[in-house]
Amino acid sequence: MKPFEPSEYRSRIGRVQARMRERGLDLLFVTTPENIYYLSGYCAWSFYTHQALLLTPSMDEPVLVLRDMDVACAEFTAFLKAENVIGYPERYVGGALHPVDFTADTLRERCGPVRRIGIESSGYFFPVQAYEALKAALPGAQLVDSERLVNWARIVKSPAEIAIMRQAGDLAGRAIDTAFNLMAPGVRGCDVAAEIYRTIIRGTPQYGGSVPTDLALVSGARTAAPHIAWTEDPFEAGTQVNLELGGSRHQYHAGLSRSISLGEPKAAVQRLAEAVCEGLDAALAAVRPGVTCHDVDAAWKAVIARHGYEKTSRIGYSIGIGLQPTWLEDTASLQAGDHTVLEPGMTFHVICGMWRGDDNFIVSETVCVTPNGHEQLTHAPRGLLVKR
Amino acid sequence: MKPFEPSEYRSRIGRVQARMRERGLDLLFVTTPENIYYLSGYCAWSFYTHQALLLTPSMDEPVLVLRDMDVACAEFTAFLKAENVIGYPERYVGGALHPVDFTADTLRERCGPVRRIGIESSGYFFPVQAYEALKAALPGAQLVDSERLVNWARIVKSPAEIAIMRQAGDLAGRAIDTAFNLMAPGVRGCDVAAEIYRTIIRGTPQYGGSVPTDLALVSGARTAAPHIAWTEDPFEAGTQVNLELGGSRHQYHAGLSRSISLGEPKAAVQRLAEAVCEGLDAALAAVRPGVTCHDVDAAWKAVIARHGYEKTSRIGYSIGIGLQPTWLEDTASLQAGDHTVLEPGMTFHVICGMWRGDDNFIVSETVCVTPNGHEQLTHAPRGLLVKR
Repeated sequence: MKPFEPSEYRSRIGRVQARMRERGLDLLFVTTPENIYYLSGYCAWSFYTHQALLLTPSMDEPVLVLRDMDVACAEFTAFLKAENVIGYPERYVGGALHPVDFTADTLRERCGPVRRIGIESSGYFFPVQAYEALKAALPGAQLVDSERLVNWARIVKSPAEIAIMRQAGDLAGRAIDTAFNLMAPGVRGCDVAAEIYRTIIRGTPQYGGSVPTDLALVSGARTAAPHIAWTEDPFEAGTQVNLELGGSRHQYHAGLSRSISLGEPKAAVQRLAEAVCEGLDAALAAVRPGVTCHDVDAAWKAVIARHGYEKTSRIGYSIGIGLQPTWLEDTASLQAGDHTVLEPGMTFHVICGMWRGDDNFIVSETVCVTPNGHEQLTHAPRGLLVKR
Repeated sequence: MKPFEPSEYRSRIGRVQARMRERGLDLLFVTTPENIYYLSGYCAWSFYTHQALLLTPSMDEPVLVLRDMDVACAEFTAFLKAENVIGYPERYVGGALHPVDFTADTLRERCGPVRRIGIESSGYFFPVQAYEALKAALPGAQLVDSERLVNWARIVKSPAEIAIMRQAGDLAGRAIDTAFNLMAPGVRGCDVAAEIYRTIIRGTPQYGGSVPTDLALVSGARTAAPHIAWTEDPFEAGTQVNLELGGSRHQYHAGLSRSISLGEPKAAVQRLAEAVCEGLDAALAAVRPGVTCHDVDAAWKAVIARHGYEKTSRIGYSIGIGLQPTWLEDTASLQAGDHTVLEPGMTFHVICGMWRGDDNFIVSETVCVTPNGHEQLTHAPRGLLVKR
């Protein structure tokens, strides 16, 4: 039932604690839902109320503080001992009291005196109000940015994580197949979106899927926009549809994008598609241990420049756990100036999206770095797909 | 295509500007995706990078600052003039530069000198790092908590919003029907979840749905946990399934919860279900203009106390737009001590969930306050549903 053995969580915690010691952090105050999940297995739709995972360099297990009614959610998902899951009472919800005050009390009680506390300053689920409340509750402590310490610990995946991402990749490919088969003039965007979600969540007879954080599905003029959702308008004949979807299992994601032409594509888009696919091939061929993210982007840029194109935005990023709002890990990006060195076990969503206004084309794959190169985790026919 | 006329956005902006004047705010720095959507129509899965909507009390239209590639997303969703959508360059993404610095420059240029700036301190998409960067970039300004000014402006819905929520409610009822019909021993949780998402997103032949923020679907022992997702395990005969789902259209939600027994229910759960449904009836009967949230909760409490039960958590909250992670509006709660006075046009998800360990039961409806009482926006057979 639970996706990982306790030993896997203990190894993750050990690596994080080692980094805490290097950085002189007495405590990590983890509030990013993906990071809480990574370190404890806790996975629930409860992050719209305050929750925090507390870890010192010497603790055997972290302490998870959350709303009282969600203690039961931890029971079914986290590997933690019951004594390490602490619920705050309902009087802290929806009223004047801030639950961070409760968490600060728990911190003092369970973690002893701490001076330097690493907080997740760039994460989304530690609002300014919680930050100010924590500062006020712990006047003797220094709150410093953790610099995405846990995010960076997540970047190299274990074999168990890669096995799950391989399944997510399989679901992504099935979703592209489903969408391609269904798509036709007169079919509505919402009909295709519905079948994509269904395919991913239902999974296969062997395993089920989880909910992906995102689906971009646009057609016609809207293909100029990278991040908007479907509409209820029917597709028109001769139009193009761009799809960016994520297969998802245990909230691990594999991203996969394709452009589909309903009928004969425009020559300009066909030319763009060929150049971009050649660029993607070059980027993927560059993926192996020892090269940098910058190098992978440079391999892509050299190809598309030769074809007379330019892209200013990154061509990918580290991918893995995604709760909400995104499957991005918020660590390495495949872009100029990112000198992160690739290691076996890293996973990237390599997405070559060209949004140029009239002519737009996207294609992507999710890959895992292997000792000798890379393994592709997603599988679907490459290129501008044509539905006749 | 767009869900609302420009006049609707102008009326929302006018109401927010009036509140800004009352509070002496020179500028509102809006970062909560739902609030940006409410004031501009902008709706895209781009909120994993910095974005902000800037509004002064005298501006004709707000200015939206976001990632350069997402300007196209605004073109297809926001009502704003092109000159009021400003993209920051890619060098601000995934690197050392913080896009808030760009936004601060835009603010100075477009909004003139401002002293008191209202920020969304309790919102999720304004991380501590962005807050610190904004403080540093505007040393002459005072950043004060907006106290959910825009959230509170959202609490009374317009007729156009209620029409959309009625459709969302219809989709929620269809999803419960779908789930009930499919559920049987041997069917997996992920199979039912897949059909629920499909039903909501596909919509009806007349209109399509959007993606709900959340789905809780648990069975057996897991019914003790309110906020966890489905698994790939098959349902067992004689087990109970708890469902909390949201119909969703244009990202407006109507919540709907039911408990379903696969076979004869336990007597204790049957007894609990009857008391809770009577309590829900009493709460709904209390909903009308002039009463307070506290009163609605008290009506519920009186009934369940008579049956020997107690619930410490709230029995509902204002509901409406939900992007991620929740459809809660983060304003009024149906709980003791919340003295918000009900007005026509307010919408609530009234959820009577009892998570007691062994015996658990949930039932909810979404309602709109009308001049004389309430209109129920969700429709499904009430009570403990039994699938034989």
